[in-house]
Amino acid sequence: MVVIIHADASPEERTEIARALVAAGTQGALHPVHAAAGDLYVADGAAIGARARARLAALPGVVRVVDVPVPYPLASRTLQPARTVVPVGNVRIGGGEPVIIAGPCAVADETRIFAAAEAARAAGAHILRGGAYKPRTSPYSFQGLGAEGVELLARAGAAVGLPVVTEVMEPGLVGAVATHADILQVGSRNMQNFPLLRAVGRAGRPVLLKRGFAATIEEWLLAAEYVLAEGNPHVILCERGIRGFDPQTRNVLDLACVPLLARLTHLPVIVDPSHATGRRELVVSLAVAAVAAGADGVMVEMQPEPETAISDAAQTIGPEELRALVSQARAVRAALDGAAVLA
Amino acid sequence: MVVIIHADASPEERTEIARALVAAGTQGALHPVHAAAGDLYVADGAAIGARARARLAALPGVVRVVDVPVPYPLASRTLQPARTVVPVGNVRIGGGEPVIIAGPCAVADETRIFAAAEAARAAGAHILRGGAYKPRTSPYSFQGLGAEGVELLARAGAAVGLPVVTEVMEPGLVGAVATHADILQVGSRNMQNFPLLRAVGRAGRPVLLKRGFAATIEEWLLAAEYVLAEGNPHVILCERGIRGFDPQTRNVLDLACVPLLARLTHLPVIVDPSHATGRRELVVSLAVAAVAAGADGVMVEMQPEPETAISDAAQTIGPEELRALVSQARAVRAALDGAAVLA
Amino acid sequence: MVVIIHADASPEERTEIARALVAAGTQGALHPVHAAAGDLYVADGAAIGARARARLAALPGVVRVVDVPVPYPLASRTLQPARTVVPVGNVRIGGGEPVIIAGPCAVADETRIFAAAEAARAAGAHILRGGAYKPRTSPYSFQGLGAEGVELLARAGAAVGLPVVTEVMEPGLVGAVATHADILQVGSRNMQNFPLLRAVGRAGRPVLLKRGFAATIEEWLLAAEYVLAEGNPHVILCERGIRGFDPQTRNVLDLACVPLLARLTHLPVIVDPSHATGRRELVVSLAVAAVAAGADGVMVEMQPEPETAISDAAQTIGPEELRALVSQARAVRAALDGAAVLA
Amino acid sequence: MVVIIHADASPEERTEIARALVAAGTQGALHPVHAAAGDLYVADGAAIGARARARLAALPGVVRVVDVPVPYPLASRTLQPARTVVPVGNVRIGGGEPVIIAGPCAVADETRIFAAAEAARAAGAHILRGGAYKPRTSPYSFQGLGAEGVELLARAGAAVGLPVVTEVMEPGLVGAVATHADILQVGSRNMQNFPLLRAVGRAGRPVLLKRGFAATIEEWLLAAEYVLAEGNPHVILCERGIRGFDPQTRNVLDLACVPLLARLTHLPVIVDPSHATGRRELVVSLAVAAVAAGADGVMVEMQPEPETAISDAAQTIGPEELRALVSQARAVRAALDGAAVLA
Repeated sequence: MVVIIHADASPEERTEIARALVAAGTQGALHPVHAAAGDLYVADGAAIGARARARLAALPGVVRVVDVPVPYPLASRTLQPARTVVPVGNVRIGGGEPVIIAGPCAVADETRIFAAAEAARAAGAHILRGGAYKPRTSPYSFQGLGAEGVELLARAGAAVGLPVVTEVMEPGLVGAVATHADILQVGSRNMQNFPLLRAVGRAGRPVLLKRGFAATIEEWLLAAEYVLAEGNPHVILCERGIRGFDPQTRNVLDLACVPLLARLTHLPVIVDPSHATGRRELVVSLAVAAVAAGADGVMVEMQPEPETAISDAAQTIGPEELRALVSQARAVRAALDGAAVLA
Repeated sequence: MVVIIHADASPEERTEIARALVAAGTQGALHPVHAAAGDLYVADGAAIGARARARLAALPGVVRVVDVPVPYPLASRTLQPARTVVPVGNVRIGGGEPVIIAGPCAVADETRIFAAAEAARAAGAHILRGGAYKPRTSPYSFQGLGAEGVELLARAGAAVGLPVVTEVMEPGLVGAVATHADILQVGSRNMQNFPLLRAVGRAGRPVLLKRGFAATIEEWLLAAEYVLAEGNPHVILCERGIRGFDPQTRNVLDLACVPLLARLTHLPVIVDPSHATGRRELVVSLAVAAVAAGADGVMVEMQPEPETAISDAAQTIGPEELRALVSQARAVRAALDGAAVLA
Repeated sequence: MVVIIHADASPEERTEIARALVAAGTQGALHPVHAAAGDLYVADGAAIGARARARLAALPGVVRVVDVPVPYPLASRTLQPARTVVPVGNVRIGGGEPVIIAGPCAVADETRIFAAAEAARAAGAHILRGGAYKPRTSPYSFQGLGAEGVELLARAGAAVGLPVVTEVMEPGLVGAVATHADILQVGSRNMQNFPLLRAVGRAGRPVLLKRGFAATIEEWLLAAEYVLAEGNPHVILCERGIRGFDPQTRNVLDLACVPLLARLTHLPVIVDPSHATGRRELVVSLAVAAVAAGADGVMVEMQPEPETAISDAAQTIGPEELRALVSQARAVRAALDGAAVLA
Repeated sequence: MVVIIHADASPEERTEIARALVAAGTQGALHPVHAAAGDLYVADGAAIGARARARLAALPGVVRVVDVPVPYPLASRTLQPARTVVPVGNVRIGGGEPVIIAGPCAVADETRIFAAAEAARAAGAHILRGGAYKPRTSPYSFQGLGAEGVELLARAGAAVGLPVVTEVMEPGLVGAVATHADILQVGSRNMQNFPLLRAVGRAGRPVLLKRGFAATIEEWLLAAEYVLAEGNPHVILCERGIRGFDPQTRNVLDLACVPLLARLTHLPVIVDPSHATGRRELVVSLAVAAVAAGADGVMVEMQPEPETAISDAAQTIGPEELRALVSQARAVRAALDGAAVLA
């Protein structure tokens, strides 16, 4: 149950509302959240009686009391039916046109990231990606250029006019990364790193939240709820494959989550076919399939001369494939917009 | 390694070839297969020396000796690079246009199967599906109408001019079902029912082979190989979701297998989003995504008044959704054909 | 809901009971089952009103009407609280002592199966296993000796005084295999081969039912229910690992199913650590762990000179490891019997 | 490849060794590690020629050059064949006797944690567990008492003479938690939180590293390698179930990892059957099975009046079950020690 209160409710009114919730048996587990719909008090899982509820609804400062059938009220379409559009520079993620995010797995050096940025822009991508703080399975693998990498990425993006997205891995670095990055990425391994989620929720930047290797849709939306509950409304969900049993592909791309999430949440959803498959030759087809399934965009690993990538070379496409991807994604979206009118 | 011999090689020549294979150390595990490329001897996993190999290649009756890097030579594109097109009546599965297979989960009675057939045809489907021998998890659930159901299905298909596909579950019934059905379906639970695979391999009908709940791509292609090795070249692979951990959907649709299979095999691939998701509201989006990923067709559960389906009601779409599906699938395929030219 | 009727209820009484069930709204989906507790009518999923229920209970021939909270009444402990003991020769599976089943993956020839039988007996095994009809992933792999293999196995067992178990893969061969085998094994790939389950349910032999690669506990118990519903009370469940994501082991051994099944069903449960792990060096430890978890026995692949096994060599143990297994399994069972008294 | 150098090698010698490694083509990805065996340089994945290798081995300061067939040299038994024993107060984890860790999921208040501590001690447990910083799926769930909870836990442990273990979730809190806790727990969601792993690697406390929901054994050992590479030799691995498809249990307990890890690593391994199953009635059987499989200990959720637990009540056992667990675990270990002598 959620109690929505006026944004300008007085401290006294808020205190009274909190007291009434406790009196109704909600154990004081109240979560004041500053959200677009006004301030909220989320009373965790509590079901209260009709009388207590009526009394709550009548209190000064209360807009309304809402039952939300899912545990993630802020992410759900119950409180906010309209789709969220995340503005990033001139790009609008969730605004209708499929957004293409492209760039190398890791920022290698100035020359290469600038070349990748130029290739991305020329092929029609909207946002530049590149890893600087790299979560690597082995402590002995290249761990990324760190702060220097973030700056190089930002300069490369600025040089070609593309906003940039990069991963941040620990709460203590969120501020520094947010200074340079337009979007903060939270990686799959950190989907349930709750201190990190809270930190990016307070950083004033859109957050690209990748699904964990073995996360259910509900766990994923609750991870988004951590960010939203800190007052940051701009979360982009990114499906990147879940763990599977077949060694043919790196992960199993779960495209069914795209139309499913469109029903469960107002947040935009993009798809990363590079990590999902781990195979360059499958990336374009699945990016196009993602758009056909309704995704708001795709994120792919791309660089000139992909075979020279310092990590994830096997799943990195080249500029020519990116051009094909952009052209096919647009054609499919246009075809579906037309077909929807006919059907 | 595969030895391809002339289709009209004499018995003596064949004996000599077999003897040479044994002499080369292949243990006599030879599998004579009547295939389009001429007869084959598959020497299981054997690597033989260059001299033995040259001697084999020089024998009368031998066309050539081929190394196949996968354990399913007949299904692979090594021996047969050209895509297989499966003709079923006037329909050509794998022929370019996405083939739509639709109909109820189970044949319920004459009235309903005729109505479903008419609705399928009117919406633009190419083939009628309907279960008569139903594999049910519980022995106490409705097990299908059996032989009567097969006949009703065939009559309904004939009435509207659509070929029909239905499942067969045991070797002893293959002949009877093949008398009425245009395509024999082998279900997920029976993907590795090897006696059944051999029986449908000898039945003279195309076989629609569903992927097992937890089958790898290689296991699936080896199941197809059982059918092909009996001399039946017409196998249609059907992805229908693999087992996952999230209760939101019945299974996990693995669309990455579509472009992957296009590289590994010449057999046509279709997708069943109904069983993959178990949710009616996701079926159309994922059917369209499947076509965008390159699938040769889709199979969906559809009937008028879906909520009255005697099984799988939650995942059955109605005629209106089928019309949207057909329209969108065609639009996407046309858009991609156009985009491919541009790219 | 289940209606239990007297074993000697008259045809007229049965007809009347069936009619009352239909009148109560159970749609005629009645399943008369000859079970130990008297004959049963299982009314699939039906909940009927209190009055209809009272009328049913009062009918001549009715013993009682029982609500069963699971969909597998015959396998559940609701109708039969006492544990089932399956007698096989002098062996009692589920009778307290851990039963050890050992032997080669496949019967290779007379010499080797007799040597394996002698080694199994000498090490303290109770039952001899050996495959004759082999379900092989590839059509080009050795498919077993078939009927000849079954006879060799039976002769080897007889020579050393051990009952034998072997797999049967198709309904048409159940009778022939049952002539020689003391226990009929249904393999993982056939756990939901329903015609086969019905056939072994009528064969008059105990059935060892392996869990499917990706079967839930409920699906597995419903597969057992198919056998029980044919009147065969002697089903032994065999856990053999479920599909997982880590290539280190062939499958994931799910030992939690052992104490869980002890709560859900009266049927005995054994564990196969050979197929579960695919690694010889893990077999003994996990066999002992299975007994510690409460398993009624274990089944392992064993033969003299394991490295010469014609299939599954990597997971086959030798006679010395089998002796250690038997000794440790007995010690653990004895320790737990003692500790239970103390605790 | 690993180069082991004398602990007292001079800076000049170290520089020379590093230079030789780069010259040999290892790209400078050298990782100097202070380990028990002397200092190491780990040259990631590099294979170098025989001559370069001989030259390296001959350099002043070099003890030897070792090929390690796995990517986790410090965790592997190649460099350190002897099992690691982790001392915690008077307890020796990995020292032969199964170590029992017990306590509530979350520290609720002073009264309850002291009662739980007393119950744990009385039942024979060796270490007290309790969560203070709780990783909760929902931002609206109770998040633990935080710093106050850590202190309460430490006081409760001190009062009954048991060391304590508690979870730490972010690098910035490692120091504070390490002040009070004897063992730092890294939870499943943070198994690949690399900044956290590095921080606990420098904290001077043993680390209990839980396996991730969907982590392979190799990924888990590489996570341990992050801790070891910071110079902390005291890592305890804790299996707690991996994600599965069957809702009957919360996770799938992978007991095969116990004997497998005994071959791959020298680190002690314990098992958490509470989180693995989520069901109180399965905990004791599986704890005993874990010990039978060779585990060095178990960790269980236990408190007086388990049904009042503020989280994880369904999987929390009571003091009586803990007594049975301790008694059975000891009996099984003793029986196996005896049987091993006999076998």
